[in-house]
Amino acid sequence: MKHFKAIQEKVNTKIQKEDFSGIPSGLYEPLEYVIELGGKRIRPCLLLMACELFGKNPDEALDPAIGMELFHNFTLIHDDIMDEAVMRRGQSTVHQKWNQNNAILSGDLMQILANQHLLKVDDEVLREVLTLYNQTAVKVCEGQQMDMNFEVDNRVCLDDYLEMISLKTASLLAACLQMGGIIARTSQPHKEAIYDFGLNMGIAFQIQDDFLDAFGQSDQFGKHIGGDILAGKKTYLYVKAKELAGNAEQQKLDELMNDGQLPDADKVTAVTNIYQDLGIKEATEQVRDDYFDRALTSLHQINRPETDKKPLLNLAEYLMQRQQ
Amino acid sequence: MKHFKAIQEKVNTKIQKEDFSGIPSGLYEPLEYVIELGGKRIRPCLLLMACELFGKNPDEALDPAIGMELFHNFTLIHDDIMDEAVMRRGQSTVHQKWNQNNAILSGDLMQILANQHLLKVDDEVLREVLTLYNQTAVKVCEGQQMDMNFEVDNRVCLDDYLEMISLKTASLLAACLQMGGIIARTSQPHKEAIYDFGLNMGIAFQIQDDFLDAFGQSDQFGKHIGGDILAGKKTYLYVKAKELAGNAEQQKLDELMNDGQLPDADKVTAVTNIYQDLGIKEATEQVRDDYFDRALTSLHQINRPETDKKPLLNLAEYLMQRQQ
Repeated sequence: MKHFKAIQEKVNTKIQKEDFSGIPSGLYEPLEYVIELGGKRIRPCLLLMACELFGKNPDEALDPAIGMELFHNFTLIHDDIMDEAVMRRGQSTVHQKWNQNNAILSGDLMQILANQHLLKVDDEVLREVLTLYNQTAVKVCEGQQMDMNFEVDNRVCLDDYLEMISLKTASLLAACLQMGGIIARTSQPHKEAIYDFGLNMGIAFQIQDDFLDAFGQSDQFGKHIGGDILAGKKTYLYVKAKELAGNAEQQKLDELMNDGQLPDADKVTAVTNIYQDLGIKEATEQVRDDYFDRALTSLHQINRPETDKKPLLNLAEYLMQRQQ
Repeated sequence: MKHFKAIQEKVNTKIQKEDFSGIPSGLYEPLEYVIELGGKRIRPCLLLMACELFGKNPDEALDPAIGMELFHNFTLIHDDIMDEAVMRRGQSTVHQKWNQNNAILSGDLMQILANQHLLKVDDEVLREVLTLYNQTAVKVCEGQQMDMNFEVDNRVCLDDYLEMISLKTASLLAACLQMGGIIARTSQPHKEAIYDFGLNMGIAFQIQDDFLDAFGQSDQFGKHIGGDILAGKKTYLYVKAKELAGNAEQQKLDELMNDGQLPDADKVTAVTNIYQDLGIKEATEQVRDDYFDRALTSLHQINRPETDKKPLLNLAEYLMQRQQ
């Protein structure tokens, strides 16, 4: 992961050099606050690493990389309002620290700043970069709407679930990688392969995230085990369980999920036991590994030296394993 | 106004041909609803009319014109949430008809669709068009934040007020006109002159809007006389009155504005009387006319036949007079 750390350092140095302050301060301060909350900067790093893989100096892709990070942070600000989340990266969310109006408007501004950073690419690739960016931004909105719909929809199937995480999460990772390829002027087959690598890796990563909520170890995982169960989230595990369960088990699962009296720990244990009985643990590991294998196949199709692919491979493996 | 009607018809025909439907429907339906609410389509019309003034077929600027209308509609959706407005163009606002989350996310999507429409210009002008668009979008956000700040700030001065309306309202009108010029490949001095025309016209128009709230005739005006007074809005009239008033009149004005017992009609009459006593009516007409004259001077500087400028001149005069 030494190479990833170096790329991450480039991103963070660039972000520190940028000036996100402005007037009126009530508009710009929430934006600065969110940027400074940090995070792993996965998206801009993927963009730079893809650019490098295809033979171009990643320093030349720093502006659009920051643009993609700004877009991602814009979605976090607005998603946190919609989800009524009070904490993000261990700190108060924007609408919690300021108010909802500030969060809406600062988020809007952040999306415009993302546009401005993406505009800083060469004329030769400008239209292609912006077309990919806008297409992806539409997908992320569609995924967020699906995710919100799932909260009140009891007929979510696995295809719906997979479409939702593809749109909401995986498409942005894929687009960052492809954008690195576009900026490096790589071939069309390479652009498609790196996109597929990112898309499948993103899906595998989100399934793993769901998996660890039920079967991870809380001290390493950073959030409490069973958070999704307590929130009644339609995770891969839940949707798969509803699919495999007989009528009696389906009813039991619904009763448990809706039981307001049951202590949290008991609820998590009971639901996890049903998951175990239905073989959800193994089924989830299997589908996660299938998507990860597809990602590797796509990476393999790229006609670059294996050593040059190693940093992306290491990052993908790190993202899959870090929380186990 | 025959020419304006023909241009408006072009815009509305283009909008009707576009397909704003999509899945999930909860994301796209609010967007379709807002587009179909209509409005005068002033911004796209200004863009097309400027394009025509500088000698290019306006049909070639329809896509970016729709982009600017989409951007404007996006700001309306989000502003209505922030202002807790329940009605817009005689119909329920989006957050009222659906809910707040739908309004946030559909607004976000609308901004992205605006980006996509603005991307449909020739390579030769792409960067210039998008740079202007993004700069303007930042200004509109800054203006909205200033407007929200004014609600809780009792020290708003005339310069603050004029900056706010320049950013929030006039800059978008100016940018639409300039964009028409850019697309028509007009000269730099022409681009600047048409921008200044739009900016000053926009400021004059907003001051007139404030003026008519107190001194217009309610049956022609479409909204109730004194709405701004009852809402305690920091209009040009209010800020000017606070500036000209002695201590006793300032106190009287504040007392009236904050009086929760006084019947609406009495409050409006009392505040309007103070405005009359202070000469606010004449002062506001004067400053409005000054900005309008500046707009005309800018239009005059443009080296095109006067007959070709006539449609823009007619529209500007119509916008200033229609509500008197």
